[in-house]
Amino acid sequence: MLLSGLKNHGADISAIVSMADDGGSTGVLRDELGVLPPGDVRQCLVALSDSSEMLRKLMNYRFEEGGLKGHSFGNLFLSALEKTTGSFQQGVKEAEKILNIKGQVIPVTNQDARLFMDLNNGKTLKGEIEILASTEIKKHGIRKIYYKPLVRANPEAVKKILEADMVVIGPGNHYCSIIPNLMIKEIADALRKTKAKVVYNCNLTNKPGQTDDFDLDRYIEEINKFIGKDGIDFVTFNTKKPTENVLEKYEKQKELMIAFDADRKRRKYKVVRADILSMKKHQHSKTDKIAHLRTFIRHDSDKLAKVLMMILELGEYEAIIKEII
Amino acid sequence: MLLSGLKNHGADISAIVSMADDGGSTGVLRDELGVLPPGDVRQCLVALSDSSEMLRKLMNYRFEEGGLKGHSFGNLFLSALEKTTGSFQQGVKEAEKILNIKGQVIPVTNQDARLFMDLNNGKTLKGEIEILASTEIKKHGIRKIYYKPLVRANPEAVKKILEADMVVIGPGNHYCSIIPNLMIKEIADALRKTKAKVVYNCNLTNKPGQTDDFDLDRYIEEINKFIGKDGIDFVTFNTKKPTENVLEKYEKQKELMIAFDADRKRRKYKVVRADILSMKKHQHSKTDKIAHLRTFIRHDSDKLAKVLMMILELGEYEAIIKEII
Repeated sequence: MLLSGLKNHGADISAIVSMADDGGSTGVLRDELGVLPPGDVRQCLVALSDSSEMLRKLMNYRFEEGGLKGHSFGNLFLSALEKTTGSFQQGVKEAEKILNIKGQVIPVTNQDARLFMDLNNGKTLKGEIEILASTEIKKHGIRKIYYKPLVRANPEAVKKILEADMVVIGPGNHYCSIIPNLMIKEIADALRKTKAKVVYNCNLTNKPGQTDDFDLDRYIEEINKFIGKDGIDFVTFNTKKPTENVLEKYEKQKELMIAFDADRKRRKYKVVRADILSMKKHQHSKTDKIAHLRTFIRHDSDKLAKVLMMILELGEYEAIIKEII
Repeated sequence: MLLSGLKNHGADISAIVSMADDGGSTGVLRDELGVLPPGDVRQCLVALSDSSEMLRKLMNYRFEEGGLKGHSFGNLFLSALEKTTGSFQQGVKEAEKILNIKGQVIPVTNQDARLFMDLNNGKTLKGEIEILASTEIKKHGIRKIYYKPLVRANPEAVKKILEADMVVIGPGNHYCSIIPNLMIKEIADALRKTKAKVVYNCNLTNKPGQTDDFDLDRYIEEINKFIGKDGIDFVTFNTKKPTENVLEKYEKQKELMIAFDADRKRRKYKVVRADILSMKKHQHSKTDKIAHLRTFIRHDSDKLAKVLMMILELGEYEAIIKEII
């Protein structure tokens, strides 16, 4: 979502993509073909693609019948490229050429590893898809989140973070998309070391059973456990309320808007509060079971991109700004 | 094979492709997704493609494990394009753009139909794959070969035949690749009507159980049943003998070289006899079961292309030439 908004602002974008995905079409391909997970990479490639609408439609097309049912064409494309080039990384580079990509898509690691989460009640959630679906994380608390086997960062991802003017984290599912990148030691180190502005785009709603009563600051606290307390420089936070109609639907599922504690002083990060909410209706492919679960309270890609470009270009004003509303 | 040789001679090529294929990956896609058969179209697209070696390797890549096993990536590509564009013809046009095709690939029909063959013993062979595998065609004789439902030609294919300077038929399996195009009434009519030179590239070997003792003239006789006795203007016929080693292997399987009756006079077509045999060894993908069955006595694409270009450029000499050896 964010990439499709950012790509039109002339920035040189590198999308560093989590390799923890193991659900749906991606999960089947990982299991059956032994490939690295193509799903998130495909979405980034499509978002950054300068190709025709047709090519983008094709990449997101999901087969609806037979043995191919549920597979997105783009996932098959990336898996076949991994097989023919001999490596996922090389396959992604070929895909960038074919799809005429603005910028780069970089897997956060080149290793094949799965995400695990041990809860305090002794239970282990195995794989991103189990973590994503769990509603017991909050109740029992997390003892440990880890990869098996332990992963090392893709050196290209580290290099990009160190060289960037701005590093943008999120939005995305906290335990399945944000943390899996930050928990890789070399990535966390790079985020501490980089001279780039590090911006965290706070999510819009809490995830029931996982981050139920987290407010903005609590999300940052959780992130800081991995990257240290000085890691985040800026936070974007939405101020626009969704329609009553949509809010009600979400509240029924106990998915509530994330709170902001306006009274709290002395944050180590500057908070940019703005209307960055999408007012569009989102529809998903009938056969993409995971997408069906996705929220309809969404960021607006253009509005968020504008806020980020403003942060990037603050220049001399940055020092004197405490908060932007 | 022929297209990859022809494309470097500056000719404006339209490849008219049979839609009778229903075996292997193509057959599964037809049955499960209800798409038109992508296999032969894919091969023509790849042969005419000006794209990188990588893109061509990708198109021919066959998945080797899991639910995707045996599917060629290019077939999935064409099927997904048919689904996203809404028609096979439109999908092929998009594929031509993506693959940077020299020339055009034109399905002989836009209808979804299967090939059937009634034998004189009352048996019906259902589908191209059954006809291809049958060893009883010669023994019992053919009562009728037909599509179900009856197909009409793609008007674009008819137009190309009428406008061409040269129309090239074959090589290819007689009942599964050559005849299925010629038996469509509008195609046969166009071949009669066109001012183009019509060239038939005679196969190299007879197919056991199907065309066992056919000589060159018999093939033409069979073809003439569909397009009339003045249809073919030129025939290319290979004179080069394969190595003893290869010949023995073929003879064990009763697959013999096609004979040429040198004593026969008054042919209605001119025969160009030349060394057009490939001396290369051919290897196939382990998972392509059909390709495995293919002959290793093959035409040489460059030699055959040169002979065809010569026929095209005969000019004033054409009238005085009886045979070219």
